[in-house]
Amino acid sequence: MTETATPDFPTAEYEIRLERAQRAMRDRGLDALLFTTEAEMRYFTGFRTLFWLSPTRPWFLVVPKAGKPIAIIPEIGAALMRTTWIDDVRSWSSPHADDDGVSLLADALRGRTAVGIPMGRESSLRMPLNDLARLHEKLPGMIPVDATPLIQALREVKSEAEIATIAEICAVASRSFANAPKLFHTGQPLKEAFRAFKIDLLREGAEDVPYLVGGADQGGYADVISPPGEKPLHEGDVLMLDTGATLRGYYCDFDRNWAFGHASDAAKRAHETLYDATEAALKIARPGTTCRALYNAMAAVIDPEGKSSGGNVGRYGHGLGMQLTESPSNIHFDMTVMKPGMVMTLEPGMEVADGKIMVHEENLLITEGEPVLLSDRVGRELVVL
Amino acid sequence: MTETATPDFPTAEYEIRLERAQRAMRDRGLDALLFTTEAEMRYFTGFRTLFWLSPTRPWFLVVPKAGKPIAIIPEIGAALMRTTWIDDVRSWSSPHADDDGVSLLADALRGRTAVGIPMGRESSLRMPLNDLARLHEKLPGMIPVDATPLIQALREVKSEAEIATIAEICAVASRSFANAPKLFHTGQPLKEAFRAFKIDLLREGAEDVPYLVGGADQGGYADVISPPGEKPLHEGDVLMLDTGATLRGYYCDFDRNWAFGHASDAAKRAHETLYDATEAALKIARPGTTCRALYNAMAAVIDPEGKSSGGNVGRYGHGLGMQLTESPSNIHFDMTVMKPGMVMTLEPGMEVADGKIMVHEENLLITEGEPVLLSDRVGRELVVL
Repeated sequence: MTETATPDFPTAEYEIRLERAQRAMRDRGLDALLFTTEAEMRYFTGFRTLFWLSPTRPWFLVVPKAGKPIAIIPEIGAALMRTTWIDDVRSWSSPHADDDGVSLLADALRGRTAVGIPMGRESSLRMPLNDLARLHEKLPGMIPVDATPLIQALREVKSEAEIATIAEICAVASRSFANAPKLFHTGQPLKEAFRAFKIDLLREGAEDVPYLVGGADQGGYADVISPPGEKPLHEGDVLMLDTGATLRGYYCDFDRNWAFGHASDAAKRAHETLYDATEAALKIARPGTTCRALYNAMAAVIDPEGKSSGGNVGRYGHGLGMQLTESPSNIHFDMTVMKPGMVMTLEPGMEVADGKIMVHEENLLITEGEPVLLSDRVGRELVVL
Repeated sequence: MTETATPDFPTAEYEIRLERAQRAMRDRGLDALLFTTEAEMRYFTGFRTLFWLSPTRPWFLVVPKAGKPIAIIPEIGAALMRTTWIDDVRSWSSPHADDDGVSLLADALRGRTAVGIPMGRESSLRMPLNDLARLHEKLPGMIPVDATPLIQALREVKSEAEIATIAEICAVASRSFANAPKLFHTGQPLKEAFRAFKIDLLREGAEDVPYLVGGADQGGYADVISPPGEKPLHEGDVLMLDTGATLRGYYCDFDRNWAFGHASDAAKRAHETLYDATEAALKIARPGTTCRALYNAMAAVIDPEGKSSGGNVGRYGHGLGMQLTESPSNIHFDMTVMKPGMVMTLEPGMEVADGKIMVHEENLLITEGEPVLLSDRVGRELVVL
C-alpha cells in the first residue's frame, strides 16, 4: 500500500472489542455475528470510508465465535480493508449481475448455526431484502438471533481511545461555539449562519460536519430538525445550532442558544430551566443510575407537575460515539444502567411560548466518580449577542 | 409554522412524481408502495432533514394507488412534514417502549394487498427486521412485491427542477476545482488539502460536502475511497479529489487530477486515455443507448484488447441525483436505456503503473440531442500545479 490514513486505533483496540464480543457470544450461545452496517463494520475492523454514502454495493462482516472477523466486501474496498488488522478479506467485483456477494457470504457462514443479526431497536438492514432471502435459501440451517442487545451493550461502553477522540471533537465544537460573536449577526440569513459555522468547525479541527441543524425565531424556534432558510436573523430572535461534527469517525453532539439584541423573559427563564435540568441529571449521572432516572431528574425540573410528555423529541439525550445518536436513550422506559466509559448526551427541551421551543444539550463521560463534561458547560444565563 | 426553509420544489413537482408512480403502480397491479428510506421519503414529500443521521427512529411513507402519500413518522418530524404538500401526517412519540410506529403503519396499509417494497439492487431496509416481522403478523394478507425497478425507473429520469439543482451544484464544484492552484501545494498534508477544498466548496455555494475522497502519490494513487492521512503532498505526486457536494439535497459527483511539479509520462498518458474514454462515451450518450454500450465505449479506449475487468470499481459511472450514486450503472450487464432527463456520471478508471491507478469523472445530462455536460469538462492534458 502507498498513501493511506493511519488506522484510527492500534490493533489492541480491535482485539479487545473482538474479545468482548466473543465473550458475549459465548454467553448467548451464538456461533457468529453478521453485520451489514457501517458502524459495526468499522467497530470491529477499523475500516473507515465515506464510500458508504453510495447505496450501490453491500458490505458484510462475519464475526465468528473464535478467530478474527471475516470481511466479505466489494473489490473497491479490498485494498483499504487490507490496511486494517483484518486478515481474511474476501471480495468480488461489485456491482454483480446476479450474485452481489451472497454466495461468498453464505460460504463464510456455512456451518455456523446460531447467527446474531441486529434486528431490534435502532437497527437497519443494509442489504437488499431479496438477498437476505437468498442467503436463507442457501443456509437452511441458519437460525437468526437478534444481536441488537449484544452489539449495543458493547458499543455503549467506550474505550480510553474512543473517549479521547470524542473529547477532542467536543473541544473543537466548544471552540467554534465560543466563536459565535464573530460568526453570527442580525441581518444574516440563517443559511449563511450555518455556512459560517460549518467553515469555522472545519477550521477549528473538525474533519467533517455531517450534522448541523438549528432554528431561529422570536424568543424561540418551532423545530429542531429543519434545514436553514434564507430568513435573516432579527433582534429578539433566539438562534440554536446543534452540531454533530466528526473526528476520525467519532461525533460530538451538542447545541447552544443565543439571543440577538435582547432576550424575552420567557426565553431567559427557559434557558435557566434547561440549565437546571441538565444540572439535576449531572448530579446523579453515576454508575448504577438508569436512563429512566436521568430522564426523570430532568423532567422534574422542566415539568414539576408531571404534565409533560417530554416534548416531541421523545427523550432527553442518548448515547454518543461512532454515530450521532446511539443507544441508550434517556427516556422513561429505558432501564439501561450507566457504566464507567459511557458517553452520553443530556438534551432536555421545553416549550418557551406557544409553538416556540428551546433545547439544550451537553456531552458527558460517565466515570467511577463525578461525570466529566466533554462539552464546555454552557452558562445558566442565555447569552445575548 | 414560523421559520422553515422554503420547500425545495413547488407542489406541482411532487404531484407529477406521484402521478408517474401511480401510473406505474397501476401497470404492475400494486395497491400501495411502502418506503423506509430518506431518498424515497423526500422524493414524494419534499421532507428534507439531516436528522436521518440518527438511527434511532424509523420513518415510513405509504404511497397509495390513489390519493396523496401518507407519512407515518416520529413526532419530532411532524412539524416539518406539515410544511410540505402532504396532508395526512400520522405521528407517534418515538422512541416508543414497544410499538415504534408499527401499529400506525399497519393501519395505513390495512386493506392494501399488493404492497411494493424496495427489495432489490441498491435497496436497504431502514427499520428493524423485528418490526417488519411484526408488520407481517398484523397484516397476514399483505403480499410484498419488489418495488425496486419501479422506484429506480421513476427516479432515474429527472425533472427540469431537479436538473437545474444538479447543474447548480456541479457549477459550484467546477468553480472549486478551478481554484485548485490557490488551494493545494507541495508540503501540504493530504488531510489539510481535503479541509481546504471542503471550505472552498462551502464558500462557493455548496450547502454540504457529505462526500470527499481522494488520493495522492507518486504518479498515481492506490485507492479512491480512503480517508486522507497526514502525509504531505510531494513533487511528482498525482492528487485526485472526488467530491459529492450538495445543494438542496442534490449531489454533484465528479473528480479532478493534478500533478505537482512534474508529471510522469505514464500519468500523462493515463489522463489522456481517460479523457478519450469519456469522449467516446459522450459521443454515444443519446436516448436509446444502453449503460452497457457506455461501458463498452469507455472500455474499448482503456483496454482495446479486452483484458480489463473494469478495475476494482466494477463500473464506469452511474446515475446521480438525490444520492451520490443512483441506478443505473455503466457496467457490462446493465441494459438500462438512456432517456432524456437522465443525469449520469462517466467514471472510467485504469491502472497507471503497478498498484497505481487513475480515475476520472464527469457529470452529464441526457437530452434529445447531444448530452449536456454539467461539470466543466476537464482538459485532455493532466494539469501540473
